[in-house]
Amino acid sequence: MLGSTISRQLSTPVRRWASTATASSPSSASGLRINSDRLLETLHRTCRWGAAHRYGDDPTETGMARLCLTDDDAKVRRWLIQEAEKLGCTTTIDQMGNLFARQPGSFRSPAPMIAMGSHLDTQPRGGRYDGILGVVAGLEVLRTMQERGFRTLYDIGLVNWTNEEGARFPKSMCSSGVWAGATPIEEAWGLTDIFNPTVTLRSELERHGFLGSVACSSDPAMGYPLGAHFELHIEQGPILEEARKSIGVVCGAQGYRWLTITVTGRDAHTGTTPLAARRDPVLAASKMIVASNAVAKKYSALASTGVMKLPRTSSTNTVASEVTFTLDIRHLQDRVVRAVQDECLETFAAIAREDGRGVSLDWTLDTDSAAVEFDAHCIAAVQDAATHLVGAEQWMKLTSGAGHDSVHTSQHCPTAMIFVPCKEGVSHHPQEYCSPADCTLGAQTLLESVVNYDRRRAEMEQ
Amino acid sequence: MLGSTISRQLSTPVRRWASTATASSPSSASGLRINSDRLLETLHRTCRWGAAHRYGDDPTETGMARLCLTDDDAKVRRWLIQEAEKLGCTTTIDQMGNLFARQPGSFRSPAPMIAMGSHLDTQPRGGRYDGILGVVAGLEVLRTMQERGFRTLYDIGLVNWTNEEGARFPKSMCSSGVWAGATPIEEAWGLTDIFNPTVTLRSELERHGFLGSVACSSDPAMGYPLGAHFELHIEQGPILEEARKSIGVVCGAQGYRWLTITVTGRDAHTGTTPLAARRDPVLAASKMIVASNAVAKKYSALASTGVMKLPRTSSTNTVASEVTFTLDIRHLQDRVVRAVQDECLETFAAIAREDGRGVSLDWTLDTDSAAVEFDAHCIAAVQDAATHLVGAEQWMKLTSGAGHDSVHTSQHCPTAMIFVPCKEGVSHHPQEYCSPADCTLGAQTLLESVVNYDRRRAEMEQ
Repeated sequence: MLGSTISRQLSTPVRRWASTATASSPSSASGLRINSDRLLETLHRTCRWGAAHRYGDDPTETGMARLCLTDDDAKVRRWLIQEAEKLGCTTTIDQMGNLFARQPGSFRSPAPMIAMGSHLDTQPRGGRYDGILGVVAGLEVLRTMQERGFRTLYDIGLVNWTNEEGARFPKSMCSSGVWAGATPIEEAWGLTDIFNPTVTLRSELERHGFLGSVACSSDPAMGYPLGAHFELHIEQGPILEEARKSIGVVCGAQGYRWLTITVTGRDAHTGTTPLAARRDPVLAASKMIVASNAVAKKYSALASTGVMKLPRTSSTNTVASEVTFTLDIRHLQDRVVRAVQDECLETFAAIAREDGRGVSLDWTLDTDSAAVEFDAHCIAAVQDAATHLVGAEQWMKLTSGAGHDSVHTSQHCPTAMIFVPCKEGVSHHPQEYCSPADCTLGAQTLLESVVNYDRRRAEMEQ
Repeated sequence: MLGSTISRQLSTPVRRWASTATASSPSSASGLRINSDRLLETLHRTCRWGAAHRYGDDPTETGMARLCLTDDDAKVRRWLIQEAEKLGCTTTIDQMGNLFARQPGSFRSPAPMIAMGSHLDTQPRGGRYDGILGVVAGLEVLRTMQERGFRTLYDIGLVNWTNEEGARFPKSMCSSGVWAGATPIEEAWGLTDIFNPTVTLRSELERHGFLGSVACSSDPAMGYPLGAHFELHIEQGPILEEARKSIGVVCGAQGYRWLTITVTGRDAHTGTTPLAARRDPVLAASKMIVASNAVAKKYSALASTGVMKLPRTSSTNTVASEVTFTLDIRHLQDRVVRAVQDECLETFAAIAREDGRGVSLDWTLDTDSAAVEFDAHCIAAVQDAATHLVGAEQWMKLTSGAGHDSVHTSQHCPTAMIFVPCKEGVSHHPQEYCSPADCTLGAQTLLESVVNYDRRRAEMEQ
C-alpha cells in the first residue's frame, strides 16, 4: 500500500531507487552520471583564486592559500553564485555570508531543502580538495540533474559555509556554528584577522558585500533551516588508503577541544643566570608539549601543538619572558577528551613548579566540539549509494577525525558525510591530493546519496 | 735604583700609589674622588634616548630599548663625542663606528692609550646599566681627572664599542670582534637588521655618519691599538649579591657557543593524522630543548633556548612544517662547552628519529667565543684598587658568564674587568638595577685601577 502510494507519487525514479537496494550493476541508481571532466576542470579552475605553494610543473601542482574573506575567497564566492543562478537556483546569503543555492523539487514543497554543503576557504598552506571538493561536487550534482532534466522530490541545494577553517579568523566551523546556535553571531562577527587586529570578520563581510539580511540560524521562523545536510570531503587521514577502500561512510565525528596555554617567566641573561635562578618559559613549555604527547598516547587520543609564540623581542642570549602555545586534543569519546585535558593541565601545573624558580601558567578553552553521531537515515542513504557504486566490500564506516560543518548541522538536521581517500592521508598541506577517479566517485556517491535520501524522506513523511 | 728612576720621572703620584699597596685609608689612592651625583645624573640623562618598558613612577624606573645604530643610539653617540671633546679629548671613529676618545698623559708618549671601554647599545627589553654604566663611568673618570688637573703618565681614554649586544644585528661583541681580527669586517658590515632585512649594519653606519675612515683593527700600522682595556660592568648574575661582596675582580670569561637548530617536519591535519604517521617538528624541538637542559645540568654548564620560531602560517589544527630554535651553551672551560654541544647534537639526532615518521635536523654554529683569562697585571691593578677601597674581605674573584668586548680586547692588549652587583642578578630586563652606591664604587674602582695600571706600566716599561 505504502509502496503503491509512493510509486504513484514518485514516478519512475523510485522504481530505479527501489531496485538499487540489491543492485550491483554499474549503471547509476538515479540514472544520472557525473561529468568527471567538468567536475575536475571546474575544481581546478576555481583554484586559480588563491593558488600558492607550487610543488610541480603541472598547472594543478600547487597548494592553496585562500583564507576566508580575502579577495580571492570573495572572487570564488561570486563565481559560485553566478554558476548556481545559471542553473536556475535561487541564492540566499545570510548574516554570516553563508551561501544557500536552492533548486526546486517536483513536490514544490516549502519544506527545507536537502543540502550538499562544504566550504571554499582554505588553510594558509592548504590544498586543492579540503572543502573545495565538497562544494564543487555539489555544484556538479546540480549541473548533472539540470542538464538531464532530473527533478528531486524535495528542494535540493548547495551551501558554502563561511570560515570553516578558522585560519584567518580563529574559530573553526565558525558560521555553521552560528547557524546551529553554538556561537553567538556577535562573537563570530568580532573575530579579528590573526595578521591584522584592525580587521574583523564582520568588516570583511561588509567590504565584500556578503553581509546578508537573512538571520544566520536554523530556525524556520527567521533563518534558513535545512531538511538534511550531506557533505563530501577528503578523508584527510590515511585509513581508507591503507585499508584499500574507495568510500568512507562517515557515521560521526571525534570530539575535540582547543586550548591556548600561556607560560610566563622572566627575562634574564642566559650567560649569567644560573639554571636554579631562572624562570624559563621556553623550557617549561617544551616540557609541557612533550608531556601532552605522552598523555595522549596513554589514552590513544591525539594531542597536538600547532602554534607556539615567543615575544617578538626574544633573543639568543636572553631567557624569554613568555610563551604561548596551542593544544588540540581529540578522541571519539568526549569523556576521553576531557580526561586528556585534565591530566595535561595537572601535569603542566607540576612542570610549572619544576625548574629554577618556576613559571606561572594560564590557559583558555577556545573551542569545545563534542563528538557527534550522524543521522541513521542519512547514513543508510550513503551506504546504499556506496554499495550500489562499488559493492559492499569497497566501502567502510569511519568516524571523522577533523571538525566539519556537518558536525554543527547534525544538531539541527539529519546529516551524514562521505569520505574519499587522499594521497598518504596528507591534508592541510600544499601537496594534498585526491585522484580524479576518487573525486568523481565521491561526487557520484553524493548524487546517489541525496537522491536516496530524498526518496526515503518522501516515504517517511507520508 | 729603579725606584729612584721612577720617582724622578713620576713625581708625587707614584708616592701616593706606592703607599696604597698597604693602605686601607678611606682616602683615594689617586687623591681623586668620583662625583657620584654627576655620574648618576649623567647616566640617567643619557637613558632618555631609548627609555622604554616603564615599570614604576620614578623617572628612572624604565628599561631601555636602544638597539644598535637606531636614531636613539646615534643621539647618545653624538652626545658622548661632544662631552669627550669638551674635556679636550681627541676623538676617532673607526670603520665599525667604534669611538675612541683620548686624553694625553704626562709622558706625552705615542704608546697606545689605556682604555676604559664598554657599550651604549642595549637589548630590546634591556636595562639602564648593562654597558651604559661602563661608558658613563669612564667619562666620569675623565671628568674627575680633568677638573682636578690630574694627569696619567700614559695617554688614557674611553671606548664605545658598536653592537655589543648583537640584538638588532645578530652578532654579539660585534665590533670589538672586528677590531680583534676575530670577524671579517665585510661579514660584520653585512649583518642585516633582524626586523628589516633591507637594512645592514653598514647602511646604518653610513646613514648616521659613523662609518669612520680609520681601520677597525688593533694593528698599530693601520688601526687603533690599545695599551690596555678596563671595563666596568654590572655582574648580570646573583653571585656578588648572594656572597654580600661589593666588587668582583673579573679574571676571565666563560666560553660559549651559539647554535641555530632547524627541525623540518611536514604539515598535516592534527585531527586526522595518527601520531605514528606524523613528522612533527614542534614535538621534536620541544624534546630537544628539554634534553639540552638535562645535558647542561650533567656538565654543570648552561644551555639556553631564547628564540624559537614556527612558520608564520602555523595554525592550531595543523602540524607545523618547520621549527628553528637557538641554543646558547656556556662553561668556564672550552672543552666542556664542546662536550655539551656534541652530546646535545647526538641526542637531537636520536630524538629526530623517535616519533612518528621522524623529522630532519640541521644546525649552524653562529658564534664561538673561547674562554679567556685576563691579564695578571690588569687584574692586580683592580685587586689593589678594590682592597684599598673596600678592604680585602669585600671583593671576590669572578669569571664572567656573559660575553663582553673585553673578551676580544684581551687577545690584543692587557685587559681586566670590574663587576658591581645588580639587584637579584637580573639583567637583559627592564628592571635591571644597580644602586647609586654600587655605580659610584664601580666608577671609583675603575679610576683607581687605571691609575694603578698606568703606574705599573711605567715601571714595566722602564
